[in-house]
Order: sequence, then structure tokens, then C-alpha cells
Amino acid sequence: MAKFKRGKQSFIPPIQPVITTWASVAGKKEGEGPLAKSFDIVSQDTYFGQSTWEQGEKKLQQLALETLAKKAGLEQSQFDLVYSGDLLNQCIGSSFSLRNMGIPHLGLYGACSTMAESLLLAAMTVGGGYADHVVAMTSSHFASSERQYRFPLGYGGQRTPTAQWTVTGSGAALVCAEGSGPQIENCTIGTVRDLGIKDANNMGAAMAPAAFETVRAHFDDLGCAPEDFDLIVTGDLGQLGKEMLLELARRNGMSLGGKLTDCGTLVFDNTMQDVHAGGSGCGCSAITLCGDLLNKLNSGKLKRILFCGTGALLSPTSTQQGLPIPGVCHAVSIISGRN
Amino acid sequence: MAKFKRGKQSFIPPIQPVITTWASVAGKKEGEGPLAKSFDIVSQDTYFGQSTWEQGEKKLQQLALETLAKKAGLEQSQFDLVYSGDLLNQCIGSSFSLRNMGIPHLGLYGACSTMAESLLLAAMTVGGGYADHVVAMTSSHFASSERQYRFPLGYGGQRTPTAQWTVTGSGAALVCAEGSGPQIENCTIGTVRDLGIKDANNMGAAMAPAAFETVRAHFDDLGCAPEDFDLIVTGDLGQLGKEMLLELARRNGMSLGGKLTDCGTLVFDNTMQDVHAGGSGCGCSAITLCGDLLNKLNSGKLKRILFCGTGALLSPTSTQQGLPIPGVCHAVSIISGRN
Repeated sequence: MAKFKRGKQSFIPPIQPVITTWASVAGKKEGEGPLAKSFDIVSQDTYFGQSTWEQGEKKLQQLALETLAKKAGLEQSQFDLVYSGDLLNQCIGSSFSLRNMGIPHLGLYGACSTMAESLLLAAMTVGGGYADHVVAMTSSHFASSERQYRFPLGYGGQRTPTAQWTVTGSGAALVCAEGSGPQIENCTIGTVRDLGIKDANNMGAAMAPAAFETVRAHFDDLGCAPEDFDLIVTGDLGQLGKEMLLELARRNGMSLGGKLTDCGTLVFDNTMQDVHAGGSGCGCSAITLCGDLLNKLNSGKLKRILFCGTGALLSPTSTQQGLPIPGVCHAVSIISGRN
Repeated sequence: MAKFKRGKQSFIPPIQPVITTWASVAGKKEGEGPLAKSFDIVSQDTYFGQSTWEQGEKKLQQLALETLAKKAGLEQSQFDLVYSGDLLNQCIGSSFSLRNMGIPHLGLYGACSTMAESLLLAAMTVGGGYADHVVAMTSSHFASSERQYRFPLGYGGQRTPTAQWTVTGSGAALVCAEGSGPQIENCTIGTVRDLGIKDANNMGAAMAPAAFETVRAHFDDLGCAPEDFDLIVTGDLGQLGKEMLLELARRNGMSLGGKLTDCGTLVFDNTMQDVHAGGSGCGCSAITLCGDLLNKLNSGKLKRILFCGTGALLSPTSTQQGLPIPGVCHAVSIISGRN
């Protein structure tokens, strides 16, 4: 039985897709963090000029797409297709942002793995010769997430030490058949892993097993190893999940030490910004990739990274029903455009 | 600027994908409707042996996938990839159904357009030579939907005449690079349309403009017309939305009369089963396609259909905030395997 072109879960696009342009929009707190200079827009207004947080999140995506078009020197109508999704119920951040824009849209739900999921689907689309200008985009918003998943913000609930802070931000990447910029070498599609973690305030632990399985599948399928990468970047396991992934790898005879980093630990200064176990949300890996990481790949400061988007596939309903939290992780190998 | 291989929104897979196998699982009410004989499984138990409706919906997808594997003569582990999504918050029907199965999974959110969205992505994946056995799947459940989107069932709320009845069911299709069965000719990806309809109990009206735009884009991109098809099947506009689509087409000089039907009007006997404007939910077009329609394409009774999945991209939050309902529609042209 034929499986994926390369191994069990991985594929190599026939045409190597180029990420020619990327854009990031961040909130106030993210703009005070260590990656501040890499964002295209930092807003001091949590509502982004809208009347609700949900519409603010829609505006985040609209700003990211506008900025992406401007940086690419294109009209938005020249985008062939937008793959996007978010954390809001029924993904209204994504669908409302594209209302009446006339841009073909395929909606995704991969929780916080959405940046990687959209990027790999964009690579599949462009790499298969289907279209030449495909956007991968996602967002999250601290305030809209908190009230949907946890408590009303006004309630002032105490956060547990394992909790992560949902990033307010949106990232968008333009994947093209031609042009200059970092290139997508290959992609690994994750499976849904569930080891029984039930604590919705410890999503890093719930996602770490999925991250490990996908990284292992990537290495097996593509015949590579941690030393082939400058960085293996998960997003967003947070501090605790990252340690669990390191431990899982160690127990399985794989050394990730020195190579592993996590968007949840990069986006905030975890000691100064009081975010407990780090950042989270679709926007976390999105603004880290579509800013700092792609900038460094473009300049040649990074030569090759494995970008591993991790998602916790829970809902408040499943949590309230006492069910565990399934996790998923998709990996995209990106190389520098410069030799 | 290059757009999609074929026109603005459409693509033709380089390898013509074959739908070799399909499976459908339906609830009690659907099993009393006109399509009863086309379903592989009809359950009299609304919970499908589970303790909650949400877990019942998970079980629906598990039954559909099991049945699909059995009919295809494969182990489930031989599926290369499952594209799936559902209406539940955070798509827990899909993610929980695939827990620890070891099958690569990409999660989608396209509301009731998900059967078409997953099918076109499966066609893109197989048609691009990325994988050989890709599953497109979705589900919906009347009871889990009602309490999430509207009222607790026990409340006994009166339904408006324009309301549709969410189908309890799951459909799955296996898209392959080789084999016999109906074939996917080409696909058209929809854009998000919003003409300002705000009545969450009249989703047919909200989706009809998106359906019209996608059907028109399909004809323009592929150079075809209504008379080239045996049926143009939307799903799920319901009775009212179907009439609006006919009217929209008429006003734009396109005659769909005689060709147009809608899964929402096929799945129930609207006069006998008290479903008001017809069926809805991701499962509506899924069980209609993965039963009656593919059976008829396979036998040669239908030669060519345009399957148009329609989705209302609302959430209870957006509705409560007074926002209109954006719609989307994706189209897949399917031809009979027999000449």
C-alpha cells in the first residue's frame, strides 16, 4: 500500500514553495516582550478599534492580511487562496475577516497548531502546482479566549502555575511558487495523541506527546536527526510542556537538547511578564514564525528549522464532561533562502 | 498574475481522483426518511452507546470510518490521511474520533460545507500525488447542535418556519489514486459572502448568495453550464434557501430550474417529518452524498453532478452580538465511473 510520498506521514512538495513575505500584528503585552521589534504592527488598543474582543480578533487578521499584501506589493485580490482558522467558536475570527473580500478561503481547525497546518496546506497547494500565491494565517486574542475557555476577565480568577497566557496576535505568510525567501522543504502531518491528561490548565503536558510523535515521525520519514537543524521550534508547549518533550525524547533515546525551543517561551519574558508557563494560542507560534523566525531564516542567521505547531484539541464542553485533552502536532521544515 | 490552474477559484487535479468507497451512518429520524435504504447503519439510539450527545457524535464518525474501512477491505491504519471537521465547538467530534488511531489528521472548519471542503482537499492531495488513500469525513448531531447553537432540548422552544433540522449522521468518502468508482473532475473553492442576513433561524437565506457565487464561478472557470450536469446539488440550503438560489440565478440570467436540488430537501420528507425548511448540519450533505448520490453515480444512474457544500459561518457569540451571517460554498464536480 502506497503511503505518503515520503514515509508514513510526510510529503515533499514537487515544486519547492517559497515564503516570499510574512506579516505579524501583536497586542500591547506582546509588544513589551522580547520579540517586539520583529512585529510589523503593535497595537495599544486591545479592541483594535472594534466594539468587541471577537471583532478585535477579526481586525487582527484583517491587519495581518493587509500588511502582508502591502509588503508583497500585491493587492489582496491577487491572493489565490487563504487557509486560516482560529480558536473562537466556529472560527469567526477567520470567516469574518474575509467577508466579501472575494478571496477563496478554506477554513481550518487545528487549535494552536493552525499556523503549521495552514502552512503545510499552502505548501501542498503551491507545491502541487494548483496555485501560485497562497496565504497561511491564524490569530488568537487573550481576552476573547479567556472568556470563551475559562472565566470572564472581570471575575479575576487566579491562574495556576502551569497555565499559559494566550497571545494577542495574528501572523500571515505568503507561500509562492517563485520568488526569494525561506523555502519549505517538506512537511509532516500529525496524528491525534491522547495520554489522558485532563487538566485544562496544563495544556503543555497534553500536547507534548503529540509533539514527540510528530518530531519522531519527521526524522523517521525524512531520514534526518536533530543535528540537521539549527532549531526545532515547537509552538506552544510553554515551559512545562517543553521540559516534558525533552524528557519524552530522552526516554526514547533522542537528544533534543540544545536544539529545542518553543514559541511559548520565546514570545514573552516569562520571568518579567508574569505569564506563568509561557505564551499560547494560535497567534503565539504565528507571530513568532511570521516575525523573528522568518526574519532570521531570510537573513541566513538560521539555516534550517523544524517548525512544529502543537494544538490541544479540547473544548470547554469536553473538559466539563471530564474528558482528557487530545493533542496534535504538524511539522514544517523551512530552510534559509540564502546559502 | 497566475491564479488557480483553471480560472479564478477552480482547479483540475492532475491525477483524476477516484471515490472508491463511501459510508454513511444515520440517526433514527434520518432512518425514517426517504433516503433510509442508502445508509450503511441506522441507529435507534441517539447516544450511539455513549454517555453524552457529544461523545455520541464522536461515535458516529468512528462508525463511519470503521464502515468505510470494512467496505474498502482495508485496515483503518491504511488510510494515509483524514480530513474532517464538525459543528461542535473546537470540532471535538472529529478530534476525539481519531484519538490514538495513528492516522494523520488535518482538522477543518467549514460549517455545513465541510463534506465538500474535505472532499476537495482530498482530491487536491491525491490528485497532486501526495498520497493514495485519503478520507473526507464529517458529522453532525441534532441534540448536540441544538443545545450548542440554540436552546437546551428540554426547554421545548418553538421552531420558526424557516428553521432547519440538524441531521444526526456522519458520512465518509475514500478518495484514491486508483480503483473504480465515481471520479472527481474538478473543484471550485468558495469565497465568504455576507449580504447582511441576521436571522440565525434562516440560514438558507444566509448561504444562498455564497452558493450562487460559487456555482457561477464554477461555470465561468470551467466553461460549463447547468445543462452539463444531471444534478446541481447544494447542501444544505433547505427549501427556502433553495428557492432563493433559484431566484438569484434567474435574476442573473442563469437557469438552474430542473437541475437544482438540495440535500436539505432530500434527506427528510419535509411534509411528513415536521422539519420545517428541511435538513441541515454537516451530516446532511455528508449522508446524502455518501449514500444515495454516490450510489447513483456508481451505478451510472447519474452521470455528472456538481456537489456544492454550503456553510453558514456564524457562532452563537456573533449572533448575540447582532452580527450578520457570512456564508461559504465549495463545489466538487463528480462524474460516474461508468460510461
